[in-house]
Amino acid sequence: MAFEITQELLENVTKYIENKNNNALNALFNEIHHADIAEILDELPFEESVYIIRLLDSETTSEVLMDVGNDVREKILEQLTAKEIAEEIDELDTDDAADVISELPDKRKQAVMQEIEDQEHAKEIVELLRYDEDSAGGLMAKELVKVNENWTITRCEKEMRIQAAEITRVHSIYVIDDAGKLKGRLSLKDLLIAATKTKISEVYIPKVDFVNVTDKAEDVANIMRKYDLEAIPVVDELSVLVGRITIDDIVDVMKEEADKDYQLAAGITQDVEADDTIWELTRARLPWLFLGLLGGVGAASIMGFFEDAMVDNAILFMFTPLIAAMAGNVGVQSSAIIVQGIANDDVKGSITDRLLKEVSLAMVNGLALAFLLFLFIFISEQDIKIASAISISLFVVIIVAGLIGTFIPLFLDKRGIDPAIATGPFITTSNDIFGILIYFGIAKMIIGF
Amino acid sequence: MAFEITQELLENVTKYIENKNNNALNALFNEIHHADIAEILDELPFEESVYIIRLLDSETTSEVLMDVGNDVREKILEQLTAKEIAEEIDELDTDDAADVISELPDKRKQAVMQEIEDQEHAKEIVELLRYDEDSAGGLMAKELVKVNENWTITRCEKEMRIQAAEITRVHSIYVIDDAGKLKGRLSLKDLLIAATKTKISEVYIPKVDFVNVTDKAEDVANIMRKYDLEAIPVVDELSVLVGRITIDDIVDVMKEEADKDYQLAAGITQDVEADDTIWELTRARLPWLFLGLLGGVGAASIMGFFEDAMVDNAILFMFTPLIAAMAGNVGVQSSAIIVQGIANDDVKGSITDRLLKEVSLAMVNGLALAFLLFLFIFISEQDIKIASAISISLFVVIIVAGLIGTFIPLFLDKRGIDPAIATGPFITTSNDIFGILIYFGIAKMIIGF
Repeated sequence: MAFEITQELLENVTKYIENKNNNALNALFNEIHHADIAEILDELPFEESVYIIRLLDSETTSEVLMDVGNDVREKILEQLTAKEIAEEIDELDTDDAADVISELPDKRKQAVMQEIEDQEHAKEIVELLRYDEDSAGGLMAKELVKVNENWTITRCEKEMRIQAAEITRVHSIYVIDDAGKLKGRLSLKDLLIAATKTKISEVYIPKVDFVNVTDKAEDVANIMRKYDLEAIPVVDELSVLVGRITIDDIVDVMKEEADKDYQLAAGITQDVEADDTIWELTRARLPWLFLGLLGGVGAASIMGFFEDAMVDNAILFMFTPLIAAMAGNVGVQSSAIIVQGIANDDVKGSITDRLLKEVSLAMVNGLALAFLLFLFIFISEQDIKIASAISISLFVVIIVAGLIGTFIPLFLDKRGIDPAIATGPFITTSNDIFGILIYFGIAKMIIGF
Repeated sequence: MAFEITQELLENVTKYIENKNNNALNALFNEIHHADIAEILDELPFEESVYIIRLLDSETTSEVLMDVGNDVREKILEQLTAKEIAEEIDELDTDDAADVISELPDKRKQAVMQEIEDQEHAKEIVELLRYDEDSAGGLMAKELVKVNENWTITRCEKEMRIQAAEITRVHSIYVIDDAGKLKGRLSLKDLLIAATKTKISEVYIPKVDFVNVTDKAEDVANIMRKYDLEAIPVVDELSVLVGRITIDDIVDVMKEEADKDYQLAAGITQDVEADDTIWELTRARLPWLFLGLLGGVGAASIMGFFEDAMVDNAILFMFTPLIAAMAGNVGVQSSAIIVQGIANDDVKGSITDRLLKEVSLAMVNGLALAFLLFLFIFISEQDIKIASAISISLFVVIIVAGLIGTFIPLFLDKRGIDPAIATGPFITTSNDIFGILIYFGIAKMIIGF
């Protein structure tokens, strides 16, 4: 059932557009899911994409616009008039509508908002625009089914039909009191089974998970994942039900978060994809490489300081890449575990406990590796002093690297900074420098130069 | 609404268990969600966890068992009798039940299966056990609501009530024909609105997304994410509806996949968490560090080969950590983008195109960085030959590192091997060695030693 974009399909689209064969285009796209149409637009020349957005009905194109890449959407919206954008907005759920509006330049925002026909919809969008995009308020939509605890099942069914007409998918039926406060939820099963005269207050489930509008998106994701929720209601400071978040939005949050952390760990700062332009990819990568260059120059300067030792102890210099690599690897391992633990909210206990554990771990790994390295150098060089100096340094470097890798993410997190930036090149580079400094320091003490 | 485990809570639990105060324990845990009980068990001494599992009713404990860490579950199951495990299994949905059974040693599997009371349930579990755990069949559950296209709405509602009694959450109503083949789905809205005598065949939606039992879990995740699905039906080779996959399982798949890739990129081979034991963490980290050690020894050997150049060109040796670090960083960046692109299924075009793009990108980055390094060395050393040798080498190393980082994951993927293993230490180490080899090779050509 997987949809594949073929070269033939793209050529047909281009041909139809050239000939202004709108019937053929409508017939073609009518058969295709909006997520797939979006993929086609991502591939098409930009003018052709605008042509198709103008051609198809806005019920479809509004969804397509949500699915195309950010850069493609930005370019398409630039070409559309305020009225055309408002027509798309009218079709979208409030959460998506608010996302699109928030991407527009300030001047256009106003123009578009004034063109929106449904005043209720416009008001709800304006409300959503107030929330931080990484908060529960920024994720939630206003479309939901809510029933008053004082209604009967019959009235409830009637009201639900009206409300459901506005809503694409009914996730949960929320129960509120006269003040609009969230009281609980009603299961579809109970609704199907209960007698028609029963009051909602007699059958609803008073226990309901919820989040506050100001909760962080990441925390909402963790809660929904932990409790296996498909939708969660959002309440404001007065416990008034103000919206709901559905799992598909959370899936996107999780995916973006995971992709971002992965890229940061690999030294890629901006959200890029394999198919982005060379310029975008360069901007995302060059800063970290530049950091690495600085680190390398730093390491070279430290080594220059110990240049006198080179005549008698050339072999020390042969092992600098090994020391730097091990410091980097250990640092990345330690920081990755901590960053992931922080994200999943399962790092417990104090920083001291954590650092102690990392020291023990580094000692186990360090002992094993230092011993192997000692054997290798002793056998090949027959010099116990050199072999000891290099392997003891490796041992100490591994411990320090582990500590730095653990401490920096924990420190950043306490300060409210995303610890993920501390992984990858950042840790590698700082550990390279520390590693080489420690290495030559210890070697100097043992060998004495 | 976030649940927090306090020291006080844990101490109370321990105290109640010591005094065998089962009433207090029941009262306490009755108020707590099973996912939170699982978190408590993860913290408690293991004998106390077993005590609690035995105490609480299996409706709760079966869910708790699904939520505790894998190692905790394994230990608890070892302590339970086959009959006790079967009681838990009876409460679980088929997909979770099959997961638990598949974790048991072969002998116990049989013993437990024979103790399961509900024969229908047991048969369905046996069916699910046949599927690969990373396939749609391995993810799906047998619990679903299906209606025959020939039924009326009235009959449909009656049958649904019977089916729904067995099911915790109704996601979709699937429509099948007499042979059990998936025909489409029925929306709750249509069901609510349609007249009672209407036949299902007149109102169902014939367009329905589905996957095949043998589809890979990752592909199922991509499809559900792309089309924003909360549940997807699974069909066998004859198009017969055999199960359904829900988004909460996919969320877990995505999370595991992302965590695994992240850890692999950081050089951690096994699925570990920050709170695992030192021994588990060592086993996950040491192999990659050992690889790094080998790489370092390799680099040292290559440098030993060029030792004669040290007297006149000591500075060359100062920059080996820089060359190694840059080769590693570029390699990790390139491979991360490709690995992510492969996972998200958005790497298009041929390998040659991809490599050409990476060369262009590496040339842009390489030129910028080589130029900076040239300036730095030329100013500090006043030697144009040395400055050229080092910066030209850096340029070439960056290009080669980018190519290796791009090529290896693509190659592994074509061979059906998870490309994620090629990121992190693997790329770093191989690029260290290649980098230093190229570096001294080019330096030798330019300076001539």
